Amino acid sequence: MTIPSTALQLRSLVRSSGELEVSLHEVPVPAPGPDEVLVQVQATPINPSDLGLLFGPADMTAARYGGTPQRPVVTAPVGDKSLKAVAGRLDQSMPVGNEGAGLVVRCGSSPAAQALLGKTVAIIGGAMYAQYRAVPAQQCLLLPPDATAADGASCFVNPLTALGMVETMKREGHSALVHTAAASNLGQMLNRICLKDGIGLVSIVRKPEQEAILREAGAKHVCNTASPDFPAQLTDSLAATGATIAFDAIGGGKLAGQILTCMEAALNRNAKEYSRYGSATHKQVYLYGGLDTGPTEIVRNFGMAWGIGGWLLFPFLQKIGPAEGAKLRERVATELKTTFASRYTRTVSLAGALSPEAIAVYAKRATGEKFLIDPSRG
Amino acid sequence: MTIPSTALQLRSLVRSSGELEVSLHEVPVPAPGPDEVLVQVQATPINPSDLGLLFGPADMTAARYGGTPQRPVVTAPVGDKSLKAVAGRLDQSMPVGNEGAGLVVRCGSSPAAQALLGKTVAIIGGAMYAQYRAVPAQQCLLLPPDATAADGASCFVNPLTALGMVETMKREGHSALVHTAAASNLGQMLNRICLKDGIGLVSIVRKPEQEAILREAGAKHVCNTASPDFPAQLTDSLAATGATIAFDAIGGGKLAGQILTCMEAALNRNAKEYSRYGSATHKQVYLYGGLDTGPTEIVRNFGMAWGIGGWLLFPFLQKIGPAEGAKLRERVATELKTTFASRYTRTVSLAGALSPEAIAVYAKRATGEKFLIDPSRG
Repeated sequence: MTIPSTALQLRSLVRSSGELEVSLHEVPVPAPGPDEVLVQVQATPINPSDLGLLFGPADMTAARYGGTPQRPVVTAPVGDKSLKAVAGRLDQSMPVGNEGAGLVVRCGSSPAAQALLGKTVAIIGGAMYAQYRAVPAQQCLLLPPDATAADGASCFVNPLTALGMVETMKREGHSALVHTAAASNLGQMLNRICLKDGIGLVSIVRKPEQEAILREAGAKHVCNTASPDFPAQLTDSLAATGATIAFDAIGGGKLAGQILTCMEAALNRNAKEYSRYGSATHKQVYLYGGLDTGPTEIVRNFGMAWGIGGWLLFPFLQKIGPAEGAKLRERVATELKTTFASRYTRTVSLAGALSPEAIAVYAKRATGEKFLIDPSRG
Repeated sequence: MTIPSTALQLRSLVRSSGELEVSLHEVPVPAPGPDEVLVQVQATPINPSDLGLLFGPADMTAARYGGTPQRPVVTAPVGDKSLKAVAGRLDQSMPVGNEGAGLVVRCGSSPAAQALLGKTVAIIGGAMYAQYRAVPAQQCLLLPPDATAADGASCFVNPLTALGMVETMKREGHSALVHTAAASNLGQMLNRICLKDGIGLVSIVRKPEQEAILREAGAKHVCNTASPDFPAQLTDSLAATGATIAFDAIGGGKLAGQILTCMEAALNRNAKEYSRYGSATHKQVYLYGGLDTGPTEIVRNFGMAWGIGGWLLFPFLQKIGPAEGAKLRERVATELKTTFASRYTRTVSLAGALSPEAIAVYAKRATGEKFLIDPSRG
């Protein structure tokens, strides 16, 4: 194949004047260093974790769509207060895209790099919303021969996040866990891991059709926040599983606190004597997302043995170290088409990712709507 | 001295009918076992940590005062919802009082018990709002010869809590700390520890007179939540000290979240490059009290490396183990009349502690108002 000298890269820029601009740039195709490979990116997902960098704190309901169909330019206003929160990125044009997969089309001189030529690999490392990306050979995950780039596009963020939750649960001394927004791609993956590994999982969703997705996938404990008896449902599921740690994608509102309240109620069902400080069992909720960006409201009626905090994949991977991280990645490669399979509702080009129709859908972060970008389509 | 066969003990009872009753009971004076000593309690403080058990969730503004001046009976209504929260203690008459000090008037046959006869000791272990209390000899802290029972009455809860905060700070990798409601007895103690040990402390108060108390005691960083520039004040103090852990006695409202916001702002002053997930430095707020029992509201604008949780002295002591705990207690005994000195605004008898005038003052948990009970006064 012919490799062009320049190719497209998607960039996001927040100007200090208060305007977001997302557009495609023609950039030089990098030459790989001795230990590097050049990957033609063929599949890169739009994860919730990408949207923050992509659109920043702009008001996308007021977005304007300019440029041409081949070179769209999306602009949107950013409020003064929000501008302050992103002071660190102002007036810097930033590449986007955490992970992806594609074909190794060129490589450096090292044996590790040479070994990957012509192979389909998955990569994490940012700037994946681009037609070509040079990366160190050791950062590539070689996909099984029968896997396409689309199969491997999401093999870091969601799989390692789901495995990281289970690993965190074990390391912090819990034996079962709770997950919210649980019908997401990530939630379905976590459900498959827990079923396979025999770990108790309580899945919290907010719609009957999300309940159905999970039950059909074999989930035993699914609670719907829209049910009038949600607290009772949740307490029963917590008592049945013994879950005392939760991973919450919502962040804002009352749900995190409600989970702690129901954990305490479940623990107290078996309490023998009165403790004025509540159950001595530590109850933990980690917020790993912010689908609701509003304040988190906690009604503290669950004793004193509790914690709420942020959880992120990369600090977790740093904490466990490279050897443990490698074990998790090996498991992902082995079970890529089963436990860690992702489904996408639509595949778009880089330009297509910036169409008003596409943005209207994926920027909502709705469960079940997941987009894949194929930059090789332009 | 003559030891009576029965003596007074203060008891708190929440009836399932929805009524709190606090009253004095005539109970048998216990005979100490072989390893025990009988202590005539002469000084026992009313700590915020005692009030929860003493009055439970009753509405003390609607309290009625009956009985006689020598045998007062205080009753107050408990709402249905609150009743549920204390289901574990319903219809059980409970003794009260975490800690105290007094004279060993009788002892068991063991050498350790014998050695304490006639000595003034401090004790922790509950049920201290009583004229006599039998405890294992090894639970007693022998006070220095020049210390009175009043000097030693508060030598566990506040001193070990203050030392526990500093110890938690060190163990969790922080180098300076924040304290709220910082003009309290506990806060002043913490200020003395930090001055002595050269540890950075940011004290948060809400009144100018509280600022003055702390500044006079040598505190360098005192921030007043009532100042219009409180966030700027706090951020400056956090940047100057490098404090990334806070101990908050308030619990409800926005303060805990504000502290995290200002910690993040202080950290970002020195940040070199944009991180979409905020500073990677972990920021922690521990809620160890609930002066504001309302919901905790957290505006999550401080990245993902953060935690909020409950903190209690006893689980902390369990975690560090008896040997480390003994070291902390030794320090308290050595510095009892300096670093760990407590001041009381009033000393009352057991009956006096149940007078409407006394309850009106100490139940408010106001900074600077601290009561001592001397049960030997009746």
